[in-house]
Amino acid sequence: MAPLGHKWRDSELSNRRTRKQGNVTTEALYTDTALRAWKLVITQLDQMFSSMNDEELRREVAPGRNRVFYLMGHLTAVHDRLLPMLGLGERLHPELDDDFLTNADRVTADRVAPEAVRLAWSEVNARLTAAMAALPPEEWLKKHGAVSDEDFAKDPLRNRLAVLQTRTTHAGFHAGQIRLALTKG
Amino acid sequence: MAPLGHKWRDSELSNRRTRKQGNVTTEALYTDTALRAWKLVITQLDQMFSSMNDEELRREVAPGRNRVFYLMGHLTAVHDRLLPMLGLGERLHPELDDDFLTNADRVTADRVAPEAVRLAWSEVNARLTAAMAALPPEEWLKKHGAVSDEDFAKDPLRNRLAVLQTRTTHAGFHAGQIRLALTKG
Repeated sequence: MAPLGHKWRDSELSNRRTRKQGNVTTEALYTDTALRAWKLVITQLDQMFSSMNDEELRREVAPGRNRVFYLMGHLTAVHDRLLPMLGLGERLHPELDDDFLTNADRVTADRVAPEAVRLAWSEVNARLTAAMAALPPEEWLKKHGAVSDEDFAKDPLRNRLAVLQTRTTHAGFHAGQIRLALTKG
Repeated sequence: MAPLGHKWRDSELSNRRTRKQGNVTTEALYTDTALRAWKLVITQLDQMFSSMNDEELRREVAPGRNRVFYLMGHLTAVHDRLLPMLGLGERLHPELDDDFLTNADRVTADRVAPEAVRLAWSEVNARLTAAMAALPPEEWLKKHGAVSDEDFAKDPLRNRLAVLQTRTTHAGFHAGQIRLALTKG
């Protein structure tokens, strides 16, 4: 398949740090560190998906468990939803929800081809990661779209940064499963 | 087994935020958010380990793959190493490395009993998480113990916070695998 669209240059992060002065620079270190952890797991998933052909994508991660194909669509749909949740724009692929989020694997027949899911995965993560990298540090401490003003006032840790971090863990959770479907060695 | 030692009160985080003034408060929001993500995955692992008896711990996460028992010891050893790496103290259980870090699963005979690994898991994470919660925000941006001064000068994202975040993803990676060994439902 074609090279994936989201290879980030570390210089993007460095530029952002050095172009601002004083305290903002320090704040950017916190959010850039979180973004790097996100990019690491996305890159790991990219490498695993790229190493598998469409037939291998249909493997279950363990007997009777989700197929890699389902998890690729699931992660794409979850990350697509982060665009509005973090105030970064409209969703790109809401059509994935039925097959990969609302329903468990194999409840519906496969309606989206593997190549389309691969492209959606790359497109969504490229768009999302670029938008996140452009978000000023202080914006990360604002509330995310799925919490009310009242609840956020009670708990300021329900911020956008928390969403990034729990989604990074979630991506890692499924990366660990997908790893089991790869040939050993 | 006995209740686990590391149930954190959110009030600990809140107290830390409100007790300081001005900019430090904002900086604590970044690090407290990262700590909450860590605690979430540790709690998730606690619940999975507590739900399994010693026989269930011996299940493989997928055919021919690591046993849950091995992953519990592996995560304990990796987290134990964070104590010196983050400048938070001496290791508690270096004796786990041989069986759970240096060697792959089943290369050596099981020399540590499941109950001992359960206790080490709880002890290490309780000690580590308490020490991390007490670390002032600015300390998180300092270099970790496995990077040289020179390399850190080139790349300030090789800080302690990055270690916390990549280890959170790592814990999530294995949590996803362990989840496969639980009874479905």
